[in-house]
Amino acid sequence: MKIGLDIMGGDYAPKAAILGAIEAHKALTADQKIVLIGDKETAVAILQENNFSPDHFEFVHTTEVISMGEHPTKAIVQKPDSSISVGFKMLKDGDIDAFSSAGNTGAMLVGSMFSVKTIPGVIRPAMTTIVPKLKGGLGILLDVGANADCKPDVLLQFGVLGSLLAESVYGISNPRVALMNIGEEEEKGNLLSLATYPLMRDAKLFNFVGNVEGRDLFTDNNDVVVCDGFTGNVILKLAESFYVITLKKQLKDEFFDRFNYEQYGGSPILGVNAPVVVGHGISSPEAIKNMVLLCKNMIETNLVDKIKQAFQ
Amino acid sequence: MKIGLDIMGGDYAPKAAILGAIEAHKALTADQKIVLIGDKETAVAILQENNFSPDHFEFVHTTEVISMGEHPTKAIVQKPDSSISVGFKMLKDGDIDAFSSAGNTGAMLVGSMFSVKTIPGVIRPAMTTIVPKLKGGLGILLDVGANADCKPDVLLQFGVLGSLLAESVYGISNPRVALMNIGEEEEKGNLLSLATYPLMRDAKLFNFVGNVEGRDLFTDNNDVVVCDGFTGNVILKLAESFYVITLKKQLKDEFFDRFNYEQYGGSPILGVNAPVVVGHGISSPEAIKNMVLLCKNMIETNLVDKIKQAFQ
Repeated sequence: MKIGLDIMGGDYAPKAAILGAIEAHKALTADQKIVLIGDKETAVAILQENNFSPDHFEFVHTTEVISMGEHPTKAIVQKPDSSISVGFKMLKDGDIDAFSSAGNTGAMLVGSMFSVKTIPGVIRPAMTTIVPKLKGGLGILLDVGANADCKPDVLLQFGVLGSLLAESVYGISNPRVALMNIGEEEEKGNLLSLATYPLMRDAKLFNFVGNVEGRDLFTDNNDVVVCDGFTGNVILKLAESFYVITLKKQLKDEFFDRFNYEQYGGSPILGVNAPVVVGHGISSPEAIKNMVLLCKNMIETNLVDKIKQAFQ
Repeated sequence: MKIGLDIMGGDYAPKAAILGAIEAHKALTADQKIVLIGDKETAVAILQENNFSPDHFEFVHTTEVISMGEHPTKAIVQKPDSSISVGFKMLKDGDIDAFSSAGNTGAMLVGSMFSVKTIPGVIRPAMTTIVPKLKGGLGILLDVGANADCKPDVLLQFGVLGSLLAESVYGISNPRVALMNIGEEEEKGNLLSLATYPLMRDAKLFNFVGNVEGRDLFTDNNDVVVCDGFTGNVILKLAESFYVITLKKQLKDEFFDRFNYEQYGGSPILGVNAPVVVGHGISSPEAIKNMVLLCKNMIETNLVDKIKQAFQ
């Protein structure tokens, strides 16, 4: 198994990425290799500073970097020797089994779709986030920004993608999939949710438990919450801001601790032909470590194959 | 000045409404009267239990009640002697200067539009909520559920409505109006926000400060946040759930204290030809008191006239 890691992506790259790779390496077996993609010389220097042998890793040297603010499509095309472009080429060619980066989210999304491509039958790939539950454990919210506008059949597919992720990677048995809405009743909602509800109910593709509201995000009446990427992105950033507020105010609580993105490693891009994980821009070494381990988990649980089967 | 109060609306009606009316009365001058609309006999009994003379109020007896779960349009039509239907008839006839209820929100919205009607030029009335700001003070979010689907010109108008409310009722000078979006840049968003941004920027109807994200709701870079009613309702309920979590966990903080809806009294329905306020279903006497005082404030600041002028 080879896990590709973009060491140039993220606000604290390359240092946080390298330190994270060291920690991840310690949790891997001998046949599980991390491939560091980026500026090799810098990487080796950081490893030596930390008395960690570069021999533990494979290196693929790249000369360009896609920065956080760049236009995704243009950057991918104009910077063929960027760590993200090279990473996706390797993923496409089978030189690595998964690719992860805390860099430009849009470039990761576009790169996925340009290189390994969307799984046949999947209309739009989605990005997910982890939601801590008040009673313990976690749930999944998708889409959180890959698709600002969605059609009902796209939301239906997100239910399938989220359900498979929850079951395979997070070990949630028969995940309860809910539709984010503005009322519990079937007849409540906007045009999108009104059209999506009967599709989800009748398709019987997953364990659909009906509508939930904003107040249900952290409750135990669902495992997977589906919404369009606009709504999901607003929810994600609002919830993150609450976490940041509790940190600033030094309000300690086990529930708030579980908002810490570092534990979860990043957001899988679901619906493309290989495991891809995008980390938070501010990823720390701990977050990078968990991003690599999430890749490993996605490979080991054959999530991509399961999604392919579901859409055959 | 006569402020109509539906004493049958809300989970703790009529008792909470009557107790709230007593408190509100204490804050009013002799020429500011509260008109209690609902079951007079019960109201008088509660007042006597609390050693408060019924002479302080005017009464309009009604025999029907629209409950929380009823279909708004059907209920308004089928229950002409309900407190909500009678309240709106009085508002239309000029027998009261404002109408407030902690009852069925949909019925309040439908009642507004059927009776006093939408202000000419306003495409859709909106419902607002108060947002506490981290640095102190408050902001406004609209729409929070009156319009699940919105067109760009409707959002543009919400900017006008929210700006006038912020300036008139909440004393915010030259309110900064922002568009809720999934990125700060003009080119970010869904079809709705992409089309709304240039309208807001070019129309120069208010102090437009551009896009904000979910994480900006409580920050000081805006005073009024505009979004469609689906997004706003999800935000409102998610934010409320955080407040409830801090209460349950007994996390004391001045910022969280300011989430307490009781202080704000309820949501004005903006864009109809008279002041209308809808309270939270769980309204306490304190909340009812502040709902009545919000009505008073809306009357005194001539908010409705200002909105009429803006849409002339």
